[in-house]
Amino acid sequence: MFSGVAPLRAAGPNDVSFLDNRRYILALDETAAGAVIVTADMCDRVPVGAIAIVTATVSEGWARVAELFHPRPPTKPGIHGTATVEEGAVVDPSAEIGAYTLIEAGAEIGANCRIGPYVSVGAGVTIGRDARIGAHVSLSHTHLGCRVTLFPGARIGQEGFGFATTKAGFLSIPQLGRVMIGDDVEIGANSTVDRGSTGDTIIGAGTRLDNLVQIGHNVRIGRCCVIVAQAGIAGSTVLEDFVQVGGQAALTGHLHIGAGARIGGQAGVIGDAAPGAILMGTPAQPRKAFYRQVATLKRLTRDPG
Amino acid sequence: MFSGVAPLRAAGPNDVSFLDNRRYILALDETAAGAVIVTADMCDRVPVGAIAIVTATVSEGWARVAELFHPRPPTKPGIHGTATVEEGAVVDPSAEIGAYTLIEAGAEIGANCRIGPYVSVGAGVTIGRDARIGAHVSLSHTHLGCRVTLFPGARIGQEGFGFATTKAGFLSIPQLGRVMIGDDVEIGANSTVDRGSTGDTIIGAGTRLDNLVQIGHNVRIGRCCVIVAQAGIAGSTVLEDFVQVGGQAALTGHLHIGAGARIGGQAGVIGDAAPGAILMGTPAQPRKAFYRQVATLKRLTRDPG
Amino acid sequence: MFSGVAPLRAAGPNDVSFLDNRRYILALDETAAGAVIVTADMCDRVPVGAIAIVTATVSEGWARVAELFHPRPPTKPGIHGTATVEEGAVVDPSAEIGAYTLIEAGAEIGANCRIGPYVSVGAGVTIGRDARIGAHVSLSHTHLGCRVTLFPGARIGQEGFGFATTKAGFLSIPQLGRVMIGDDVEIGANSTVDRGSTGDTIIGAGTRLDNLVQIGHNVRIGRCCVIVAQAGIAGSTVLEDFVQVGGQAALTGHLHIGAGARIGGQAGVIGDAAPGAILMGTPAQPRKAFYRQVATLKRLTRDPG
Repeated sequence: MFSGVAPLRAAGPNDVSFLDNRRYILALDETAAGAVIVTADMCDRVPVGAIAIVTATVSEGWARVAELFHPRPPTKPGIHGTATVEEGAVVDPSAEIGAYTLIEAGAEIGANCRIGPYVSVGAGVTIGRDARIGAHVSLSHTHLGCRVTLFPGARIGQEGFGFATTKAGFLSIPQLGRVMIGDDVEIGANSTVDRGSTGDTIIGAGTRLDNLVQIGHNVRIGRCCVIVAQAGIAGSTVLEDFVQVGGQAALTGHLHIGAGARIGGQAGVIGDAAPGAILMGTPAQPRKAFYRQVATLKRLTRDPG
Repeated sequence: MFSGVAPLRAAGPNDVSFLDNRRYILALDETAAGAVIVTADMCDRVPVGAIAIVTATVSEGWARVAELFHPRPPTKPGIHGTATVEEGAVVDPSAEIGAYTLIEAGAEIGANCRIGPYVSVGAGVTIGRDARIGAHVSLSHTHLGCRVTLFPGARIGQEGFGFATTKAGFLSIPQLGRVMIGDDVEIGANSTVDRGSTGDTIIGAGTRLDNLVQIGHNVRIGRCCVIVAQAGIAGSTVLEDFVQVGGQAALTGHLHIGAGARIGGQAGVIGDAAPGAILMGTPAQPRKAFYRQVATLKRLTRDPG
Repeated sequence: MFSGVAPLRAAGPNDVSFLDNRRYILALDETAAGAVIVTADMCDRVPVGAIAIVTATVSEGWARVAELFHPRPPTKPGIHGTATVEEGAVVDPSAEIGAYTLIEAGAEIGANCRIGPYVSVGAGVTIGRDARIGAHVSLSHTHLGCRVTLFPGARIGQEGFGFATTKAGFLSIPQLGRVMIGDDVEIGANSTVDRGSTGDTIIGAGTRLDNLVQIGHNVRIGRCCVIVAQAGIAGSTVLEDFVQVGGQAALTGHLHIGAGARIGGQAGVIGDAAPGAILMGTPAQPRKAFYRQVATLKRLTRDPG
């Protein structure tokens, strides 16, 4: 019988643990865990006395086991006494509305949502069922699908960076579009997603954004994309499904990034990318070319003669 | 008679649309818009039945037409019942103060301001007329001119990153300056502007900052500069008027950037820039040199022999 | 007798000023300050009539003198009338709790803390004595030592970016760890620190993070490290004591950075770093190699023949 989960070095005989990165194999040798989730090739390294739970998908196994021991806290239906729900807003009775949260007129909150404290839900915003909205999030001109998670401080739906240059200075271009966020999307802490200028800004189902990510107006992101922390995508760029963008990468505006393309960390992408392309560096280029150039430069420098 | 504005692909016979980027010229061919704002050279491509509104400045034309159909919502004078205005704060009767907003003693809010919910206006902060302050903004030690727009989550006036290294660890250097923000400035969502350490941090009239931009203490930015998302400017650097800084660019401290200089996206600027200079890369260099180096490296790599 | 402190150009006869950067030596020649803190070699440049206060550590001297004239405002004990302290939370009577702040059940606030407005202190969070927590900070699953400073909008303790890729899409991996923050730590505005996934995310005593910094889950940072604005450190990377990370630098996950290592601004670190290493560029390499490569590339480009 197991009572919990723990990392290899902290686990005891009643804990389930896991190894998904060979870097930590010494910790496997020394673990006191009662069971360890591993791939088949690691099986021999599991200490005597520990049960090896063998799977080709350690992360998935770990996710499922850990959730057994640590299920999500249930939603506590009700509206906190300090919250404000304006006339004409609709809050499902099964939803939980946190302290000081503001639901403006015309907004709709679906079943079983957990809305944290200090959340600003602007007029007409709709939130599908089972959402989890963290503290201090602000939402305007936005429609969320089901099971969306927004982490604290995310800013969704404000006007983007759009202006004309005139002789009298900059003139704001009215930003009229919305943000459409699909089912199962997650958006990290303090990330920013601007509303569309004429069309909409779209984030497809299952896509995940890390913290401090910037998404410009009219950007369209497909399904199951991954955008790592501090990356930025400029206005009107389109990402097809399954695109991965590394941390601090930048994509300029009006690009088309094909399905399954992978953009390296800190890359600077200034042109379209074919489906499945792997790009690195600034300006971004195919991975092989990037590494060849890094190697060439090193070689030239070693032998300056 | 027209009833609205829309992008080329969505517009119908009663809509005005526009084309300001040749990338989307196929959408012009197929648009059902009743009128399209275009430059003279695009005039022939406007479909029969649509009116061509010809201008050399499409963006400006679009901005003005779109605003006719979508004027800014008017300010609703009054202080929300959940807001707190401390004794000694002055709020113009024509201003709108949002839910849960806090105006501390000595603060002043000008005529026709729209202050969103959860805005923290610190003691002594002054906000000129016609400001629009988004949700969750925090302001301290700051003076705003007229018609300033701050987007949600902007942090203005906190202490910057200043400390002395001593044998006992780091010792904070008191940060005593203010943030002075000129007329018509816009600052994006979750951007941060630190107060001056001894002098002031200054953002000149008409300048626009995008989302997630970092401005260090004592930075002085001139008029009508443009700072794109996720760029960072370290302490005491000076930007003259009309400087443009690309997304994710970084400027180290104590630099002088001449008027009209343009810093490319992701550039790393570690030295002064002459007026009108165009800099790219890390470390930043003139644009031509940067592209020559990119080409040279590509050539060397293609022919390694 | 002196009445205040001021920068060289603004100081008058009753002010103390300082020079810690040779760039501003002309301002020293012309200052009207009554006294100037300088290093010995600058002594001759101090104008007649001004007192030279000579020290090897100008910044430290300035910090101490400036604090004499501008001591930190004292804590005003008490809980604001609009704040919410849940049953089972413990707030020291000497602490100051700002407007609309929420202290959830099981949280503990130590003596003399100053907690600003709109701070979300989650269930079970503990804050040691003498903390200063800025407006709009959110804290969950976090323990703070003594004298910690968090600037506005910092997000500490939310779930990090952890998921398994399955055939049905991404599956969140439960994030079970905490954030442990040592004494005297400072974290900048709108920075984000994710809770550990299995172990804890740890920030050692005396370490300072600037604005908009991202710290991934399970990262362990030693004592007295410095992380400049917009830098990002991916999950499970370890920084030993006294490491310095420049602005916009990125460290990938699972790295080990030795004590005293220095990572340049915008560097991209994808491998371990030895103690004292100085790394620059993307991919990061030793400083000398980086500058040699920059020089080589310039030379090749100048003489393409």
